[in-house]
Amino acid sequence: MSKISILGAGAWGTAIAILLGNNGHEVVLWSALKSEVEQLTADRELKDKLPGIKLPDSVSISGDLKSSCENKDLIVFAVASPYVRATAKNASSFIAKDQIIVNVGKGIEENTLETLTDILKDEIPQADVAVLSGPSHAEEVSRGIPTTCVVGADSKDTAHFIQDVFMTERFRVYTSPDVIGIELGGSIKNVIALAAGMADGLGFGDNTKAALMTRGIAEISRLGIAMGGKMETFAGLSGVGDLIVTCTSKHSRNRNAGYLIGQGYTMEEAMKEVKQVVEGVYSAKAALALAKKYEVEMPIVEQVNQILFEDKPALEAVSDLLLRDKRREYSELQWKK
Amino acid sequence: MSKISILGAGAWGTAIAILLGNNGHEVVLWSALKSEVEQLTADRELKDKLPGIKLPDSVSISGDLKSSCENKDLIVFAVASPYVRATAKNASSFIAKDQIIVNVGKGIEENTLETLTDILKDEIPQADVAVLSGPSHAEEVSRGIPTTCVVGADSKDTAHFIQDVFMTERFRVYTSPDVIGIELGGSIKNVIALAAGMADGLGFGDNTKAALMTRGIAEISRLGIAMGGKMETFAGLSGVGDLIVTCTSKHSRNRNAGYLIGQGYTMEEAMKEVKQVVEGVYSAKAALALAKKYEVEMPIVEQVNQILFEDKPALEAVSDLLLRDKRREYSELQWKK
Repeated sequence: MSKISILGAGAWGTAIAILLGNNGHEVVLWSALKSEVEQLTADRELKDKLPGIKLPDSVSISGDLKSSCENKDLIVFAVASPYVRATAKNASSFIAKDQIIVNVGKGIEENTLETLTDILKDEIPQADVAVLSGPSHAEEVSRGIPTTCVVGADSKDTAHFIQDVFMTERFRVYTSPDVIGIELGGSIKNVIALAAGMADGLGFGDNTKAALMTRGIAEISRLGIAMGGKMETFAGLSGVGDLIVTCTSKHSRNRNAGYLIGQGYTMEEAMKEVKQVVEGVYSAKAALALAKKYEVEMPIVEQVNQILFEDKPALEAVSDLLLRDKRREYSELQWKK
Repeated sequence: MSKISILGAGAWGTAIAILLGNNGHEVVLWSALKSEVEQLTADRELKDKLPGIKLPDSVSISGDLKSSCENKDLIVFAVASPYVRATAKNASSFIAKDQIIVNVGKGIEENTLETLTDILKDEIPQADVAVLSGPSHAEEVSRGIPTTCVVGADSKDTAHFIQDVFMTERFRVYTSPDVIGIELGGSIKNVIALAAGMADGLGFGDNTKAALMTRGIAEISRLGIAMGGKMETFAGLSGVGDLIVTCTSKHSRNRNAGYLIGQGYTMEEAMKEVKQVVEGVYSAKAALALAKKYEVEMPIVEQVNQILFEDKPALEAVSDLLLRDKRREYSELQWKK
């Protein structure tokens, strides 16, 4: 049994509170929003996003950051990406040396191009920061549907500790030393999900969508490897695994927004219709900036940016992708003769 | 313009005849079955499998193997896997030295554990044998839906020649030197599609299915690398790309048979219901034999074999997969500390 606090009480933070609470841990679920703290305390349920799933008794709700951060075996950062730096800054003085923190959020900061673990390391330099990611819809995890994730950490001991905390019969955790690879897969997949949705919206077939997803993970891999990540990670749960869930599920906001754009909606109209933050729209800019910084070709990311921000018609963009010059699938493999 | 013959007039051979005929080539579509030759000659359409799509005038139909093989720039082998060796044996004496042949079929011979290009090299040793594979439903290719494939060959010139022959605005071809990797991805994906279908049939979620697909491509990669294939190939169009199409499409026989087994049907009942050959059932045995031969762990392939041939309940098999001991996602990556 470990003492754990979860910072952020959105769908994913709450699903993790339910998972870890049911797994025998003493859990504090913290929110910066008074309304969320009151609602969760009163109902013991995240009514709008995870309806019908009660928090176990081992989960307490808190709005106090200091007590939530002190004397914990593990702090889980489940904060939406735009609020990670500010939350980390506020929490830092309450966090002990070598405190293990695991980021479960996804995103890249637009002005610094840093990942969320980078931001946590910046703002809480005394902590030992790890990441957990994978194909894991909160709705399914909260209902105990078999799910797998991968935890990335600099040290084996930290990875194994977090693995032990999360692992259940229905939540299987693998470990990996590739923190940057795991962060990038989770952040950039949403841009590819927009493109996959557009292909669906344009009425293209399963062949087209599978091609976009495969070439999409190839360009995420190219960028990730240039940034120090490992090929294996992009072929794994936090890479192609998460991409598959995001591109094929009808519940994916990014895929659905892409679908509407494929059908002729503008970006603004699509985002209004989907009624929630569409992360891929923000990640698209960051991904393009990273591609330029690391001098990596990311044709799908480029076309998605042109569709979103330069009014390029989606059909023309898909055609431009198909009309690229002939090439090898992976240019580094050698011919026998 | 090239002179091309396509051996095998099933859905995929016929779709390729339509693609290449429309691409300006002079195409002969050969079948061993008199009834197929007569039906295609009379209707100029593969009525049962590709209804409504007419063969272009540049495609002629033939039942004569000798004239179909002689004086061709390219011979496309689109023969169902159980008939590849016999067809190759019959054709061999009509095939010139250095004749370029491209296999577009998928499968592993059960008694020899050879891939289809291995069989072609055995039976037609004078030929230059290549392979073409990728996420490419015949129904979609015949209708001109944007599709991507990869051609694998020992020599760059051969790969580029085949790329030039197939490439159109809506059929994009990449090249690769990794023939064995391309063959294996296409052959073993059907076993994983059975498992993915079972997870759907058992009522599990998108998380579970994405996990099975991702861990499935990981075990295909492990086997393929042990056999000389390249990691990149399994992350590419003929690996995970083809796996995505096969596991997610409602039109996939393998996925659908798995779904029925997940719902409680026996293998025999499921195959009767699906009414067609379910390749994954045959590939499952070959994949397990290869895993043993190359001493590679393939837990999903093992469980699928136990379900199919030892009456193990699908629910118990999925549970056994989830209860495996804790491990690293890729054991070869090194920790920082």
